[in-house]
Amino acid sequence: MLTMEKFLDAREILRPVVNQTPPIYSSHYSRLTGNRVHFKPENLQVTGAYKVRGAFVKIARLDAEQKKCGLITASAGNHAQGVALAAQMQKLKATVVMPATTPLVKVNNTKGYGAKVILYGENYDEAYEQACALAERSGLTYIHPFNDLDIASGQGTIAFEILEDLPDTDVIVLPVGGGGLAAGVATLAKMLKPDIQIIGVEPCGAACMKLSFEQDEVCSLASVSTIADGVAVSKPGELVFPYIQAHVDRMLSIEDEELIDAFLNAMEIHKLVVENAGLLSVAALRHLEMTGKNVVSILSGGNMDVITIASMVQHGLIYRGRVFTFSVLLPDRPGELEKISHIVAHLSGNIIRLEHNQFVSLNRNAAVELKVTVEAFGHDHKNAILRALSEKGYRAGLIEPSASID
Amino acid sequence: MLTMEKFLDAREILRPVVNQTPPIYSSHYSRLTGNRVHFKPENLQVTGAYKVRGAFVKIARLDAEQKKCGLITASAGNHAQGVALAAQMQKLKATVVMPATTPLVKVNNTKGYGAKVILYGENYDEAYEQACALAERSGLTYIHPFNDLDIASGQGTIAFEILEDLPDTDVIVLPVGGGGLAAGVATLAKMLKPDIQIIGVEPCGAACMKLSFEQDEVCSLASVSTIADGVAVSKPGELVFPYIQAHVDRMLSIEDEELIDAFLNAMEIHKLVVENAGLLSVAALRHLEMTGKNVVSILSGGNMDVITIASMVQHGLIYRGRVFTFSVLLPDRPGELEKISHIVAHLSGNIIRLEHNQFVSLNRNAAVELKVTVEAFGHDHKNAILRALSEKGYRAGLIEPSASID
Repeated sequence: MLTMEKFLDAREILRPVVNQTPPIYSSHYSRLTGNRVHFKPENLQVTGAYKVRGAFVKIARLDAEQKKCGLITASAGNHAQGVALAAQMQKLKATVVMPATTPLVKVNNTKGYGAKVILYGENYDEAYEQACALAERSGLTYIHPFNDLDIASGQGTIAFEILEDLPDTDVIVLPVGGGGLAAGVATLAKMLKPDIQIIGVEPCGAACMKLSFEQDEVCSLASVSTIADGVAVSKPGELVFPYIQAHVDRMLSIEDEELIDAFLNAMEIHKLVVENAGLLSVAALRHLEMTGKNVVSILSGGNMDVITIASMVQHGLIYRGRVFTFSVLLPDRPGELEKISHIVAHLSGNIIRLEHNQFVSLNRNAAVELKVTVEAFGHDHKNAILRALSEKGYRAGLIEPSASID
Repeated sequence: MLTMEKFLDAREILRPVVNQTPPIYSSHYSRLTGNRVHFKPENLQVTGAYKVRGAFVKIARLDAEQKKCGLITASAGNHAQGVALAAQMQKLKATVVMPATTPLVKVNNTKGYGAKVILYGENYDEAYEQACALAERSGLTYIHPFNDLDIASGQGTIAFEILEDLPDTDVIVLPVGGGGLAAGVATLAKMLKPDIQIIGVEPCGAACMKLSFEQDEVCSLASVSTIADGVAVSKPGELVFPYIQAHVDRMLSIEDEELIDAFLNAMEIHKLVVENAGLLSVAALRHLEMTGKNVVSILSGGNMDVITIASMVQHGLIYRGRVFTFSVLLPDRPGELEKISHIVAHLSGNIIRLEHNQFVSLNRNAAVELKVTVEAFGHDHKNAILRALSEKGYRAGLIEPSASID
């Protein structure tokens, strides 16, 4: 059971291990929402995510027998690093089964904490089954990422820190995957301050907790699809679900596209790298429907590899109108490129890419397709350039990026 | 003069205004250098940089007459935002002259703090001259970004915080532009702890302080060239230079290319966005030539617009071998593209761009140039793919990115 004793014990276990991450005031989101908003930056936590809290507590509480045989888990993400570090610090052996598709940087980080890594399967479920099979065959102790009350008691210690640093907190907003963080933080926060509100946030493409919450029982999704890989879970944990039912006040869901704006704001305004799952509680700030409250938004982690950062930045540039691509059909004769260049340059647009295709039509007056990618100051500037092209008689069509984020 | 009284007074002035930014331990750089390294993250400061400290103190100390007419400065960067916010909080009017080429995001931030922005000239020097002319014509008080002891006393307050939070600090590493930060921090730190070492860091392309330090007098560079725009200064401040001579122990200089690795580490490992000038004191950690010391590296700011972030990330991907482009000449016949694709895919390389040029040669056995851009796991993986191509008889040449960073 999640009792105050368990939380206090978890706190003592974690004291020499984790950072008490400092609350960071956000004047931007405070102004935007009419509340007083602080971030709890668990992206600055050891291993780059809060997951190490639960893993460390869980492992510390195993008995000698369970510890002796070694530990195993399946994860492609923050839990893997949490278990690996916690095992290393407690001088235990850990094996982590990761999907074969896991980015090398995460594999290396996990190995860096001394864990044995087995790459297996195409996705998390296949890695999970393999880990369970290995656990059974070799007598290893399986460390579940969220469906475990010891794990939840570790994650819950965040609530001690929030209410110590910011005792006036009215609302805590947190991302929800399987429910370990939500169960721990909501249960402890309500013990410490019964009138506090807890708002959980999921991606629309993996909103199994919202569904379970509404149905009053644990429900599974047939499939999940979200860029917030840290919370791409199809079914909440059975053991933690009752605590969420009892203590989480509301579940919100967020479209993947909203994470782009949150990502850019985190980088540009707050100078913080926050991974997509962690951005859920940032994006949710726009949907709170309250004012004058002291709101704490938990940034759950910051483990994003450079390729993903690059992709988010590229989408962000398009989203902000800082980069756009238009296509225009031109007559096949000398001087046309110069005219287009002149219009764009005259309005201070900076051409960063050109594609010139001569074989699109037999009509000599619209025979060449030119695709032009331009760096601009934002949407107003983008529209001014497109308008200028149109005024000069060019039918420039904006090439919208696809809605999906890869 | 920079006296303890001035620093104590500056600290009182700043107490309600600035964040005491929390020291962040870096296990990565501690391990890498054999020291115990903390960052002082002034990128998390109000306005995203330490500059607000000096500007606020300077403005607070102006007399009624100087305040009445209003303030003016020239800056395309952090000083602009610092002056604008400080003026706004003290209910004074501020005008900032920014080069016409300043990124819109910085213009908007400065306006957002209530300053009047004048866009003028192609570069900082032209903006500066215009600001001086306006100051004289309209009786405005000019606020210099660094050559001013009140400014330096404000910047110096960082030393109070470092030595309060980390009293065992042996070495402070800080970026140097005109010398305001260095003079303030070095002077106060030596007052508080005489045996502390202060190491200043400049980009190789704007190392006017190192030159002046060696020549024992203020020297000017004919030109400066660096991506660390925040410290792209051709001449140290005359008023602060004597303090740097007296209290800075050593000057290092860093190549722009080294900032890419520091940028990626700040993002990937520490989840922090640090601007190029601020990365100097990160990159310098590799050059300390000492072990077992308690080192504090000041991250001076994090104001980097998304376009610059995108460009740094792109260069970082290439630097890490995560993206590479090779070119290969192919016979002009069906099936060749398939063979190349197969070799790359077989080794788990992910092709993200193809360029196919049919007009490079009359030799039908080497008639088509194919440029292939591949996403890989790093340099070893990249080399394995290039080796496999060569083993299959393809002469694939790596296309190296240009050395310059735009």
